[in-house]
Amino acid sequence: MSQRGLFITLEGGEGAGKSTAMAYVEKRLREANVDIVCTREPGGTRLGEQLRETLLAPSEIDIDPLAELLMMFAARAQHLSECIVPALQRGQWVLCDRFTDASYAYQGAGRGLGEAPVSALEELVQNGLRPDLTLLLDVPAEIGLSRARGRGALDRFEQEDHAFFERVRQSYLSRARRSSGRYQIIDASAELFEVESSLQAVVEDLLACPPLVDS
Amino acid sequence: MSQRGLFITLEGGEGAGKSTAMAYVEKRLREANVDIVCTREPGGTRLGEQLRETLLAPSEIDIDPLAELLMMFAARAQHLSECIVPALQRGQWVLCDRFTDASYAYQGAGRGLGEAPVSALEELVQNGLRPDLTLLLDVPAEIGLSRARGRGALDRFEQEDHAFFERVRQSYLSRARRSSGRYQIIDASAELFEVESSLQAVVEDLLACPPLVDS
Repeated sequence: MSQRGLFITLEGGEGAGKSTAMAYVEKRLREANVDIVCTREPGGTRLGEQLRETLLAPSEIDIDPLAELLMMFAARAQHLSECIVPALQRGQWVLCDRFTDASYAYQGAGRGLGEAPVSALEELVQNGLRPDLTLLLDVPAEIGLSRARGRGALDRFEQEDHAFFERVRQSYLSRARRSSGRYQIIDASAELFEVESSLQAVVEDLLACPPLVDS
Repeated sequence: MSQRGLFITLEGGEGAGKSTAMAYVEKRLREANVDIVCTREPGGTRLGEQLRETLLAPSEIDIDPLAELLMMFAARAQHLSECIVPALQRGQWVLCDRFTDASYAYQGAGRGLGEAPVSALEELVQNGLRPDLTLLLDVPAEIGLSRARGRGALDRFEQEDHAFFERVRQSYLSRARRSSGRYQIIDASAELFEVESSLQAVVEDLLACPPLVDS
């Protein structure tokens, strides 16, 4: 059996510039002839996009934090079985806009559920699969929020307060610092050309020396 | 703090007559002046009913079994926090059309996930709460299915085959037999007046000697 593809995730709070970074990394990898699938969470499948709509819609429904976490993992289970795992097994690389680190940050820290329920669901759903590389676009909460608010209508998460996004940011940073090399922290408060230059360096390293993965 | 209300669930496969039984038990309890909330799963809340629609709609989306289970528990978490637990704490009784036994039967046995993931989610979501009494309406799969099919359009579950419903039935019976007195098995293949007479006997016992619950 040939080696599976690399699983790369992009993470960051609101207004960190994930969409721009996704497009940039995708372009660089395609230029290097990497066969790549770009996807996102919550979403990436028809069921996942339906759940995403319910999760992001600003509405009068006050979603229980644990229900929110379980819906995120329901979308993730579908995403893994329908899209991510088959692509990796075909040898394609998968570039995913948010994954389980976002559940630790948003539901674990932001909503205050703690790491334990996220970790239990990660074990249940992912069958040992973890991203091979996570690009964390880090930006102070106030800068990210003012960027997000400049974009217009806010989704259910973007309507949260500053303290929520500060908890999200600290969770991302703390997990990145505790982990052994899976994360690359990118300073996303910098000018765009500097962010792209950091991303280019990461992509070049990755192509020159890809991490070893279990097939 | 006054004692919490009783939590009663009704379970059974397709065509077991749960709706008729719900209405009958509700009527008997209201006649005895019990303050009761009647609800159902998946559903019982606005979020839960949205998830129910996605879960039951016959569609081209092939829902992954684990995603299905997680959606059931997302709806359950919302149902518990928004409806069931507050009602029980106010001292109301809750009569619920399906609960976690249905996840063991449909996703655990029917879909073949086994008991472990259901049990893990039960621990995560229910904070130790279990039904005080479960009325299991038992009917052979072929009888139940022919009744359900006589009702017209079939939902995503009702479209499953006979073997699926046989696994569902055996899971319900096996859990009922293993448990220490929480279940009352009602022969739902009998004539309606006999089923109602069994239900009446259960309700009378319940009112005469309600199970002790932790407040």
